[in-house]
Amino acid sequence: MKKLITLLSVATFLISCNEQKEKTTIVNNGLSSEEKIDSTHVKHFFNTVLTEGKSYEWLRDLTQNIGGRLSGSHEAEKAVVWGEKLMKEVGLDSVWLQPVMVPHWVRGEKEVANYTINGVTKNVPVCALGFSIATPKNGITAEVIEVKSIEEAKKLGNKASGKIVFFNGAFDNTLINTFQAYGGCVGQRFSGAATVGVLGAKGVIVRSMTNGIDDYPHTGSMGYGEISQEQYIPAAAISSRAAENLSNDLKTNPNLKFFFKQNCETLPDSPSFNVVGQITGTENPDKIMVVGGHLDSWDLGEGAHDDGAGIVQSLEVAYLFKKNNIKPKNTLRVVFFMNEENGLRGATEYSRLAKLNNELHIGGLESDAGGHTPRGFSIDANPENTKLIKSWNKLLAPYGLHDLVKGGSGADVGPLKNEHVTLVGYRPDSQRYFDYHHTSTDTFDKVNKRELELGSASMTSLIYLMDKYLYTQDKVKP
Amino acid sequence: MKKLITLLSVATFLISCNEQKEKTTIVNNGLSSEEKIDSTHVKHFFNTVLTEGKSYEWLRDLTQNIGGRLSGSHEAEKAVVWGEKLMKEVGLDSVWLQPVMVPHWVRGEKEVANYTINGVTKNVPVCALGFSIATPKNGITAEVIEVKSIEEAKKLGNKASGKIVFFNGAFDNTLINTFQAYGGCVGQRFSGAATVGVLGAKGVIVRSMTNGIDDYPHTGSMGYGEISQEQYIPAAAISSRAAENLSNDLKTNPNLKFFFKQNCETLPDSPSFNVVGQITGTENPDKIMVVGGHLDSWDLGEGAHDDGAGIVQSLEVAYLFKKNNIKPKNTLRVVFFMNEENGLRGATEYSRLAKLNNELHIGGLESDAGGHTPRGFSIDANPENTKLIKSWNKLLAPYGLHDLVKGGSGADVGPLKNEHVTLVGYRPDSQRYFDYHHTSTDTFDKVNKRELELGSASMTSLIYLMDKYLYTQDKVKP
Repeated sequence: MKKLITLLSVATFLISCNEQKEKTTIVNNGLSSEEKIDSTHVKHFFNTVLTEGKSYEWLRDLTQNIGGRLSGSHEAEKAVVWGEKLMKEVGLDSVWLQPVMVPHWVRGEKEVANYTINGVTKNVPVCALGFSIATPKNGITAEVIEVKSIEEAKKLGNKASGKIVFFNGAFDNTLINTFQAYGGCVGQRFSGAATVGVLGAKGVIVRSMTNGIDDYPHTGSMGYGEISQEQYIPAAAISSRAAENLSNDLKTNPNLKFFFKQNCETLPDSPSFNVVGQITGTENPDKIMVVGGHLDSWDLGEGAHDDGAGIVQSLEVAYLFKKNNIKPKNTLRVVFFMNEENGLRGATEYSRLAKLNNELHIGGLESDAGGHTPRGFSIDANPENTKLIKSWNKLLAPYGLHDLVKGGSGADVGPLKNEHVTLVGYRPDSQRYFDYHHTSTDTFDKVNKRELELGSASMTSLIYLMDKYLYTQDKVKP
Repeated sequence: MKKLITLLSVATFLISCNEQKEKTTIVNNGLSSEEKIDSTHVKHFFNTVLTEGKSYEWLRDLTQNIGGRLSGSHEAEKAVVWGEKLMKEVGLDSVWLQPVMVPHWVRGEKEVANYTINGVTKNVPVCALGFSIATPKNGITAEVIEVKSIEEAKKLGNKASGKIVFFNGAFDNTLINTFQAYGGCVGQRFSGAATVGVLGAKGVIVRSMTNGIDDYPHTGSMGYGEISQEQYIPAAAISSRAAENLSNDLKTNPNLKFFFKQNCETLPDSPSFNVVGQITGTENPDKIMVVGGHLDSWDLGEGAHDDGAGIVQSLEVAYLFKKNNIKPKNTLRVVFFMNEENGLRGATEYSRLAKLNNELHIGGLESDAGGHTPRGFSIDANPENTKLIKSWNKLLAPYGLHDLVKGGSGADVGPLKNEHVTLVGYRPDSQRYFDYHHTSTDTFDKVNKRELELGSASMTSLIYLMDKYLYTQDKVKP
């Protein structure tokens, strides 16, 4: 009996080893027959986009004929009309506008900042942060107190009183993924003013959020949180080079006085829209996969990488499906979200309506990390679907899409999160992103045609695979 | 006996499976203890370059204070002096100049080209190809015959006689690696003139080698091969947009006459130098690993991506070794090769002297594919070392270096090839490369600081691993 068991286990072991060998063979020698079909479709998406892609010319139109399009602005209105028209031209089955009230903050006149040291006045590249209040009409002049973080600022106590607090936390440039570096210090931009407003500071200037040393102020959102309105103080970003210089000058002249002036204003909320279009699914029209980016942008540049790129890529996903005569089994919905930059009202409203209408979202893919060369996707899903997406590595790697990692998806698809929905963020190379982010240099010429197009085809390939294989509530892993 | 053999094989099998399991565990659960040491060194290289890197400022100096530096030019001379001085500043153990005679082709006055159609004269962005002869003083005017390839041109026969042959083969944009697309049509640039010179053509114009449609003529090398000197005809590149337009205009006006004028000239060979410096190996000073790029560049731009980037990255490899107090076991030699673009005389001479002096080269790494974001390395080595380098995937992947593939290394280290030497080409992302390649737009501002630096650290990491692990003639795989 013992011998039989031994023989049986050896046999089982051998069979198991053979299975292992077979699996290895498939992996090593290429693709299964089904994977070959998928591989061909993926190749077609890339071939089509690189020869008949539309995204680059769409982006040219959006950025150069409309330009920066902050929520509530006339340009944002024009972008909505542009988006709706374009979705119809691409031939989506249905296109509609989803009304949403958005914040309406305006920058006003160009900001001014300077300080005088040893008799020489140094002009400082400066811009108000989104939602900041204005300075008094004649600006603010005060001594400066420098900190590197919110934590340090909290400890200032009385010392902050009557001062301009200078948040000079720099990116950790050793982080390969620049978004991590951004994450490490964006807090000072967002809540610096609230932190020291309660301490009686007169104003806040923040080092621009960028890896490099440049002369552009990088704007971005801030908020006053729960502090009382009397404690609101003006907040501005100064260029990274100006921050370096100011920091040095403060070492020799700790009592130098900094001046800045801005007359930005928050007006009453404005009516606006998400632009939505879809290709209805052939098998499961009630199951929805969203692909999108945000239509609004900051006002300083043209919103090319942030997020014009994501907008045109998202629509190009639908274009590439149609151009290759592939009909999604589930409904493929393209959404141009409004107001990601300062409010997230579009995404919030989209998600609210989806719940209200009992819409079943099975997937969401967001492109809001620039139009640079593809690197991969960041997956926010249950373990089964996470594993599934990672298993597409061999289909995606030939296109530079090696990074299939667990992580966040994006601000606009984020509100759709639940245990069943598979959310994914498109992740292009991040090295150049913060050179342009929220500045006047985020313009069309910074986007490379092929890189943008490769992104569109990357996203299309992922959506194609998600449409075909995703495990959903009624289609679970066998 | 049979039973014993069976038992033995089962035992062996089980042991083998256990070994397999252990290896798998190491791979799955992280790194072996030795790999952890390597991983730390690699991380230090990246940390150092991203905080204290020198390459970007070196490149600024080379490109903006010297500029384009075609072999034989005054700028190339200045670049040699610059290179020698810089190597000494970095503190290499020894630095020397290796004399080499190089071709001396000069462009002369700015080229002119145009044609008239329906009474409108269209100016064409044009530049002479390197080594081309001049046109007659008043230029060439002739009808145009369009072909898409060398093969098509060969079949022209008498039809080419008296004509300007227009090589209009375009990049295959569906190829993800743009160097493959370049390889697919660079033949028409290099040997177009020789091909139709023998057929009595008056001149050759070639569509610029680029993925996109732009207004810049892209120069590059050509040769007359074995044809007789009387059959030499002038050859020029025209911009890709001009090529598209001309092709369209020829459809409606097949007899239009094209005019171009250039007064380039090949002067007698000039004396020049490879710039060489090394850190002597602590254990095997007689075993040499070369890292290099080419110091010469085309004259139209600043030679920033091609190959200023490779030059400063190669030197930064030595800088990063020194800065991290890592002494290579084998001799690490940095070579700034002269004359890669039009002659390869520097590399040829370097290799000739290496053989003459019985130098033992064990490895070579070349950076001549631009300063863009890292993607990997292309390996030209024996199977053992190829496998070895591929096994470093888990150490290199965190830095975006996923592509460890068998392939060519580079033109300058290529002549060192033999069965024992391991040659590698650094492979950054290729999408933007041919936007700038050999044009006036290959300037410093096109290079991103972090991307350039990541390349330096990528190369340093590879050289560190090669220095430690490479199988050589007396250190074979156990």
